[in-house]
Amino acid sequence: MIKKLAIIGVGLIGGSFALALRSAGKVEQVVGCGRSEANLKLAQQRGIIDCYTHDLATAVRGADVVFLAVPLGAMRDVMLQMQAALEPHAIITDGGSVKGSVVQDARLALAEHLPNFVPSHPIAGTERSGAQAAFAELFENRRVIVTPIEETSAQALQQVSDLWLACGAELHQMPVEHHDEVLAATSHLPHMLAFTLVDTLAAMKENDEIFRYAAGGFRDFTRIASSNPAMWRDICMANQQHLGEMLEHFAAELTDLAETLRCGDGEHLLSIFARAKAARDRFIDCV
Amino acid sequence: MIKKLAIIGVGLIGGSFALALRSAGKVEQVVGCGRSEANLKLAQQRGIIDCYTHDLATAVRGADVVFLAVPLGAMRDVMLQMQAALEPHAIITDGGSVKGSVVQDARLALAEHLPNFVPSHPIAGTERSGAQAAFAELFENRRVIVTPIEETSAQALQQVSDLWLACGAELHQMPVEHHDEVLAATSHLPHMLAFTLVDTLAAMKENDEIFRYAAGGFRDFTRIASSNPAMWRDICMANQQHLGEMLEHFAAELTDLAETLRCGDGEHLLSIFARAKAARDRFIDCV
Repeated sequence: MIKKLAIIGVGLIGGSFALALRSAGKVEQVVGCGRSEANLKLAQQRGIIDCYTHDLATAVRGADVVFLAVPLGAMRDVMLQMQAALEPHAIITDGGSVKGSVVQDARLALAEHLPNFVPSHPIAGTERSGAQAAFAELFENRRVIVTPIEETSAQALQQVSDLWLACGAELHQMPVEHHDEVLAATSHLPHMLAFTLVDTLAAMKENDEIFRYAAGGFRDFTRIASSNPAMWRDICMANQQHLGEMLEHFAAELTDLAETLRCGDGEHLLSIFARAKAARDRFIDCV
Repeated sequence: MIKKLAIIGVGLIGGSFALALRSAGKVEQVVGCGRSEANLKLAQQRGIIDCYTHDLATAVRGADVVFLAVPLGAMRDVMLQMQAALEPHAIITDGGSVKGSVVQDARLALAEHLPNFVPSHPIAGTERSGAQAAFAELFENRRVIVTPIEETSAQALQQVSDLWLACGAELHQMPVEHHDEVLAATSHLPHMLAFTLVDTLAAMKENDEIFRYAAGGFRDFTRIASSNPAMWRDICMANQQHLGEMLEHFAAELTDLAETLRCGDGEHLLSIFARAKAARDRFIDCV
């Protein structure tokens, strides 16, 4: 049982984590911390948190578990501001979509607390955001990847793993670097492509007409381009290296395809399309 | 009232066209033509067609309207085989996703029938295919683009327009070239990107692991990569020029983005993402 849980950033992820642990009976008191008074008030009204503060030191003082659910670009400042007030036994975890940058921030800002730090990434989300969008079942049957670092103690890893399992999540563990490579491929690159495609079309003349003739496939394909731009700027910047490599690799594939088209090599096109369909049908629709 | 309607290719599009016109009371007899006996039999059982033949000349003989719903790669051969048996008054239209190539085929194969030829493209479809998947409401409130050519008579254009309106479609008209440019952007390029992304990831080592951590966004983004590979090979080859230009343009944008990432220019990323989100929210979700 956690006596005091501090949620830093009470949005969809932070709020849902609190609700899930509450409904699993794993926590006594939840304190929320954030910048928006309106959001924190709403979180309190919805019973996500018991009380709130805008001050990070106040929030983490006396907390047994601290969950960081702020944008990646804010992680380091948040860690620096709360660091001096952390209890020596406090377990710290986060929900960031990139792990390398968070670990780098933690090494800089959490120094002696590193044994208690367990980076994690719940692969869950909706288009909605804020405390309004939080719900206890968000992580149920969703994969959560924990990426313990060298310093992480076995006990801290166990505690954080138990919390995610209590949220109903399916737990996976992998090295930080590997996490960032995999997510660059399956999440960050697709977001980049969707944003870039919509922006490219929007820049064409008669763009209203172009979008008018977009069918259902386009709507699905570009849904992720309606995601939060600032959050995705942070994610892309944080995973700069792996994402940059994926982007260059993919751009080269496209240039190759343009050449294939120019040569009229239908067989080559067919083999790419058929392999892709087989892979998607096998890996995605069967999951 | 159409006395005899010939449907060449009784799949999702061809079958639904017949069902929609039947339910609108616009047609007396429907004859189906195709290669698969099983599919034609099923179409007859489902009441989509009254009878069928594998012979194109037999199918179009005596027909007042001929609807070509075969893959783009088969259009020219089909036209050549039916050409001599066409009635002088027969109206010919099609459902191909690219119009330039169909018009080129028609100029070569339909010669004296060009005044009666009205190229059209219903922007409708599902992942399913074959007579099994056909339904009368497929075109309801969907956009259908007709792209009459210089030779198309006003009367033929009117007749085909009336048929699509009877199917419940929203009718649009534009030049052939413009259609192919617009569709390259909103449909053909996104399909190319989805196929290529899935194939690229499938080619990475540990690809099963990569797909395992794909979330809902990836599923939506790549849904179109489960489309029929041969059909899409035909579409891409048929719209080779416009699609090639779009691909090169897009690949250049990606190379630019990789550079932006390398320079750590977060502001530039944010402006692309924000413009894209605004455009998508404005043009797509509000449509």
